[in-house]
Amino acid sequence: MTKKMMRLGLSMRGLGYHPAAWRHPDVPVNGASEIEHYHTVARHAERGKIDMIFFADGAGVRAKDTPKGSLARLGQYITDIEPTVLLASISAVTTHLGLVTTASTAYNEPYNLARRFAGLDLMSHGRAGWNIVASWSNEEAKNFGLEQVRDYGERYERAAECAEAVTGLWDSWEDGAFVLDKESGIFFDESRMHRLNFEGKHFKVRGPLNARPSEQGRPIVVQAGNSPAGRDIGAKLAEVIYTASNTIEDALTYYADMRERLAKFGRPPDALRVMPGFRTYIGRTREEAQEKFEMLQDLIDPVVGLSFLADTFGDLSGLPLDEPIPADFKPAGDREGISGWADRLIARSRQDGKTIRELYLEQAGQASSNYIGTAADIADIMEDWFHKEACDGFNLTVPHLPGGAADVSDLLVPELQRRGLFRTEYEGRTLRENLGLPPHRNRYTGADRVREASIA
Amino acid sequence: MTKKMMRLGLSMRGLGYHPAAWRHPDVPVNGASEIEHYHTVARHAERGKIDMIFFADGAGVRAKDTPKGSLARLGQYITDIEPTVLLASISAVTTHLGLVTTASTAYNEPYNLARRFAGLDLMSHGRAGWNIVASWSNEEAKNFGLEQVRDYGERYERAAECAEAVTGLWDSWEDGAFVLDKESGIFFDESRMHRLNFEGKHFKVRGPLNARPSEQGRPIVVQAGNSPAGRDIGAKLAEVIYTASNTIEDALTYYADMRERLAKFGRPPDALRVMPGFRTYIGRTREEAQEKFEMLQDLIDPVVGLSFLADTFGDLSGLPLDEPIPADFKPAGDREGISGWADRLIARSRQDGKTIRELYLEQAGQASSNYIGTAADIADIMEDWFHKEACDGFNLTVPHLPGGAADVSDLLVPELQRRGLFRTEYEGRTLRENLGLPPHRNRYTGADRVREASIA
Repeated sequence: MTKKMMRLGLSMRGLGYHPAAWRHPDVPVNGASEIEHYHTVARHAERGKIDMIFFADGAGVRAKDTPKGSLARLGQYITDIEPTVLLASISAVTTHLGLVTTASTAYNEPYNLARRFAGLDLMSHGRAGWNIVASWSNEEAKNFGLEQVRDYGERYERAAECAEAVTGLWDSWEDGAFVLDKESGIFFDESRMHRLNFEGKHFKVRGPLNARPSEQGRPIVVQAGNSPAGRDIGAKLAEVIYTASNTIEDALTYYADMRERLAKFGRPPDALRVMPGFRTYIGRTREEAQEKFEMLQDLIDPVVGLSFLADTFGDLSGLPLDEPIPADFKPAGDREGISGWADRLIARSRQDGKTIRELYLEQAGQASSNYIGTAADIADIMEDWFHKEACDGFNLTVPHLPGGAADVSDLLVPELQRRGLFRTEYEGRTLRENLGLPPHRNRYTGADRVREASIA
Repeated sequence: MTKKMMRLGLSMRGLGYHPAAWRHPDVPVNGASEIEHYHTVARHAERGKIDMIFFADGAGVRAKDTPKGSLARLGQYITDIEPTVLLASISAVTTHLGLVTTASTAYNEPYNLARRFAGLDLMSHGRAGWNIVASWSNEEAKNFGLEQVRDYGERYERAAECAEAVTGLWDSWEDGAFVLDKESGIFFDESRMHRLNFEGKHFKVRGPLNARPSEQGRPIVVQAGNSPAGRDIGAKLAEVIYTASNTIEDALTYYADMRERLAKFGRPPDALRVMPGFRTYIGRTREEAQEKFEMLQDLIDPVVGLSFLADTFGDLSGLPLDEPIPADFKPAGDREGISGWADRLIARSRQDGKTIRELYLEQAGQASSNYIGTAADIADIMEDWFHKEACDGFNLTVPHLPGGAADVSDLLVPELQRRGLFRTEYEGRTLRENLGLPPHRNRYTGADRVREASIA
């Protein structure tokens, strides 16, 4: 048996995950709207034999302008290129790289989602994946006729139905359905075309999908939600899970829970890849890595920094930045269930003498979940998580692009390869093959044939 | 002043417009699902300096299985690749070709449409266009929770609102909105970001769109509906109109009507390009052209042929094919307002001794609107229409692909170029420039600046 390999994803939304990335001297300032930028990043990823690139997404400008002036200075995720069409373009300039994006079950019809991802899967010869999200942002909701998002239960019920319908549509054409015989004039075998006839509370979809399956049978299903309902959708349908575990203990607990849920749905443990997000600052030396981080931190405009505290505290812009939050400060944030969190942050700020500036740098720079060091330092951690079975691999959310992606492929990947943890060549052409997932089994193949034989 | 040039579009849905195209020996039988096929056709079109390629579209298998067995033999438009993602891939392998597709206002949210087309427009550096359709097919409706399409008035009201919202969202970012100044940390100028706040009967959309405008300001708006409501949407918003005029007289009447409607909306005549569809069979000799047509006609399976009469007559498969329709035949078609049409067809069949086979070959092969001949023959007709101002150009709906596209670029285009009717090089990079349309004027540019100046 071949040795189990680590899986790697690269998150490549916009200009990277650090909020000051757009001000970095090496970052193309308009890159989030430029296809050439995305092609460059994707080529870096493919050069590094990365399993798949991934796009988080939102259908709207989600950030608020608190404090005033922060939105205009944020630069991150203000405008970009819609990711299904973006990945289609990337599919034309890559050959092995997996192509995964988020698409919302709140604001899309299942038929349209199924069809667009099926198209992407065909064009890429089996490299597409759909990350199911239920959408949490009220700013997005306002672009779709709602004042705020539907309540939690309804959102997840809708997400589960949508995912059922989409994956059902992907099975519309059983194996062998397309005869394509010019001589006899038979294009397809009607007995292998299946109408879904899905009827749920939120969606009713007949089918068949007017797109045939790709070389990987259907797009990979990805899920990232952490709530119980999200985890159940993941355990039932997903083949890849993105998690946000900050410690190996969290990751181990999460994975154990998912294994139990998988079993509940009758799926083998091998049917799922769990990949925590990892923010990496990689240097040739530790000093260089630290400098990379600090360079970006130094580029955070104070008003942008304060915007990262606004959901919790409200507008702090009247207070001195280099002093702790005043003891009598009344948090005015609008994040749900935030008051306890705000109180703890204030207490910590008072106790450690942490200034407002230090607090926002911590939040904006995601200090608690960064991995800063040499490739060997970071590979040590990844190897530990991987060997202890806290995960099957990692989804790297690099701070700036294209530099962060180049660092992964030039520094981190060679280190993982030296350790025998990561591939040196793609094993297959499809994303499913490269992730080592079992082949997709169309729900009608087999069952139907048996039924037909017994009738005959 | 430079001479006015003819505009050319190429419709390239699937394997072409003849229902037996898939059986043609030169046609890749699985081409409708293969990106390589579409890239080949697009490259033919760009080599011919065609203004734009165009995709008709339907979100579903729209054909019915009458007579039984016809669907499995139809091959045309059964499965394909969703055209917005398909055009995104084509954008990566072309540089000047316009990229236009249909997208339905019945089954899409305006925000999603605006965003996807804006993305396509950015990636292609200003070559995208959206063909607004209200969707007529009950087969599609069943994929979106409906038993049948909404009634005519509601569909067009919805289409008009959707088009308003989409074009409004495309103006979210006024000229000069993106400052992109790394030094000062200002990414955009908030006074130039505009929320749409659209509120209609069918849609409510806040904005701004999270995509910036491309080099052509916004995608080209295309319209093809022929009903009064459709024509008004076209006159108000469209920059290109596809028509289905079978005679120059029809085309002249249509264009005169559109000029009046344009004026009603305060738009200059130059703001619109009217392009009738033209089905071309082009040969080096007239005989060769005729053979190309007949070869495809011979490939029409009788059961497929009869399916082209089914909407009018119902299932004719019990009748002898080489005799006229019996005088006492009762049409059982389900096309609306069809009985008069059926009676006329039967009368004509009886009178001319036209057999059922001849009737279906006429319908399936669209005999009444084909242009079959040498490049010079077809150019003569096109020149006549163009010089008499029956149109601004043509949308070529070739019978099979990629051969039909190669014939256009190898035979027809050189003939039009010799006559000085068609470009030998693209004039610009954007579709708007190549169509000779006036620059797009963002609704806020100017007005707002003036207002601000007067306040200051």
